[in-house]
Amino acid sequence: MRDPVRVLLLGTGRMGCAIARLLLERPGLELVGVYARRAERAGRDVGSVLGLDQPLGLEIQPDLAALVEEVRPGVAIQATCSRLEEAEPELSVCLERGIDTITIAEEVAWPAAISPEWAARMDRLAQGNGATLLGTGVNPGFVLDLLVIALTGVCTHVESITATRVNDLAPYGPAVLRTQGVGLTPEAFREGVAKGTVLGHVGFPASIAMIAAALGVEIERVEETREPIVSRVRRETSAGVVEPGQVAGCLHTAVARRGGRAFVTLHHPQQVHPHLAGVETGDTIEISGTPELRIVGRPEIPGGVATSALAVNMIPPVRVAAPGLRSMADLPVPAWRGGPGGNPVG
Amino acid sequence: MRDPVRVLLLGTGRMGCAIARLLLERPGLELVGVYARRAERAGRDVGSVLGLDQPLGLEIQPDLAALVEEVRPGVAIQATCSRLEEAEPELSVCLERGIDTITIAEEVAWPAAISPEWAARMDRLAQGNGATLLGTGVNPGFVLDLLVIALTGVCTHVESITATRVNDLAPYGPAVLRTQGVGLTPEAFREGVAKGTVLGHVGFPASIAMIAAALGVEIERVEETREPIVSRVRRETSAGVVEPGQVAGCLHTAVARRGGRAFVTLHHPQQVHPHLAGVETGDTIEISGTPELRIVGRPEIPGGVATSALAVNMIPPVRVAAPGLRSMADLPVPAWRGGPGGNPVG
Repeated sequence: MRDPVRVLLLGTGRMGCAIARLLLERPGLELVGVYARRAERAGRDVGSVLGLDQPLGLEIQPDLAALVEEVRPGVAIQATCSRLEEAEPELSVCLERGIDTITIAEEVAWPAAISPEWAARMDRLAQGNGATLLGTGVNPGFVLDLLVIALTGVCTHVESITATRVNDLAPYGPAVLRTQGVGLTPEAFREGVAKGTVLGHVGFPASIAMIAAALGVEIERVEETREPIVSRVRRETSAGVVEPGQVAGCLHTAVARRGGRAFVTLHHPQQVHPHLAGVETGDTIEISGTPELRIVGRPEIPGGVATSALAVNMIPPVRVAAPGLRSMADLPVPAWRGGPGGNPVG
Repeated sequence: MRDPVRVLLLGTGRMGCAIARLLLERPGLELVGVYARRAERAGRDVGSVLGLDQPLGLEIQPDLAALVEEVRPGVAIQATCSRLEEAEPELSVCLERGIDTITIAEEVAWPAAISPEWAARMDRLAQGNGATLLGTGVNPGFVLDLLVIALTGVCTHVESITATRVNDLAPYGPAVLRTQGVGLTPEAFREGVAKGTVLGHVGFPASIAMIAAALGVEIERVEETREPIVSRVRRETSAGVVEPGQVAGCLHTAVARRGGRAFVTLHHPQQVHPHLAGVETGDTIEISGTPELRIVGRPEIPGGVATSALAVNMIPPVRVAAPGLRSMADLPVPAWRGGPGGNPVG
């Protein structure tokens, strides 16, 4: 039996806690440290933050550099943010010390889509210190990019790609619902889009750039649109009630053009309680080409569970990957790692 | 623009010809030589074998070693056989000369499932000569293993896996239909299974071993069963008519047990004209665990097209892979390579 992989976790929010629980139960992995940005979490036992019956004897630490030096992890997992700028300081602390690092910050799934300079800088930092950096998650990172790419692998020609992810925002808290415009009037929604307070999905640029790079195609232009999903029914949410005529969520669409035509079209309508409007959730990937493909998963792959699973399941391939900035498209596929040793699980 | 990759093709059967057509049209690849086992093909122009209007000025060669020495390919693709023993002499000729080699021989998708000695020997041969060997194809190699593995990647727990591939044998020739027992009486089918003339699907051991290795689980026992699909309707085939009461195909199932329970169950009912019996073709992957997943593709990913596409689409990752025997589970995912350069296709 090999020594377990020592894992450092950054973040104690909803995703951080989900990842922590996985790390605690997964054979072959050991949670050796937890860092939190929020000062009020410092010093608390990780067990109490996770709602466990017993303390874990592991205190949440506010000083990331000191924590890395102290516990010398084999891998770090970052679950603190979505954006490149915000992710960079923590990633740098880990990479500078040669720590392989996995982040669920959406933009890091393919950072060059946002900032080629950021991507080049972090690639150099990782390579220079013999570390690997990977951004992963359900989306971007899996449903609307990695799975799409893999399915093109059975094609002799690809004319165009359309993928749709219909999900339910009801499990999410008020902060997420606000970024999707839930509860607004259609007019306020459009104003929010214009002002940048209604964001829709973070990740289309990353997914499209990952697909384009994997397929070796040049995308001339990406158009993103955010439309209000106006409810005809009453829906109760964590942020209050959505009345008929108000916005239940955001239909965010990205169209990537090549040769003047839509080559990749990604639809991601996110709303609270879609079933109340007769909408079934699910993931659909359609490839027009040879062959014609249509793959459907219903309900959708649940985002929170899948993202936490991917962060942990990608540890083995990240550990053996060449140093530098990597993506889901240039590492082996993720796999549930019930082993080593075939320990029964569940 | 980089120089095109020089590709040598082994095989001029149905799959070899499909791969040749792809190589001829794909930017960045150049078909530089074609070898055939069948002596009567030697000296024929590849264009005439492919049914092209014009000769290609490329003669089919019967001496593989001489051909490799002459054309010095960057990659070889083998499409001549299914089994390890039969594949080995040709693979050895290529690997000994340091040529990265892709084969669609089903058993090479995970050769240790059939013969760990064969796998170790070819791994040494490939490594010793700085070459990479990969077995790929739609199944084994994609639908019932790589896709399954990738989908477990979004799981925090996997209790069990069930995957079903329902396809239509009608496009296949008499030789394939015979191995599936098409046209036999149910009694003759069972005798054929006992004698080894009715084979069913070649590839379950490879798929199961690939899944088990990727997930790090130990499989205690694999049980394979081959049952006749007895037709209630008349079906016309390339090997004659199947009358009601006769066998329309083979329901081949493999069950891999772990901890005494079925952990992976793979169903592959193959029959001629399933729609005549009201059966819809398709690929279904179900994962029982967290989350519960059910992914359906209808109709099934067509085997011939997909296998030829995979053989060609895996060229880029094979070219940069570490030397040795590799599998689809330890290389990046396949991708349709419309590039380099974004040449419009189709």
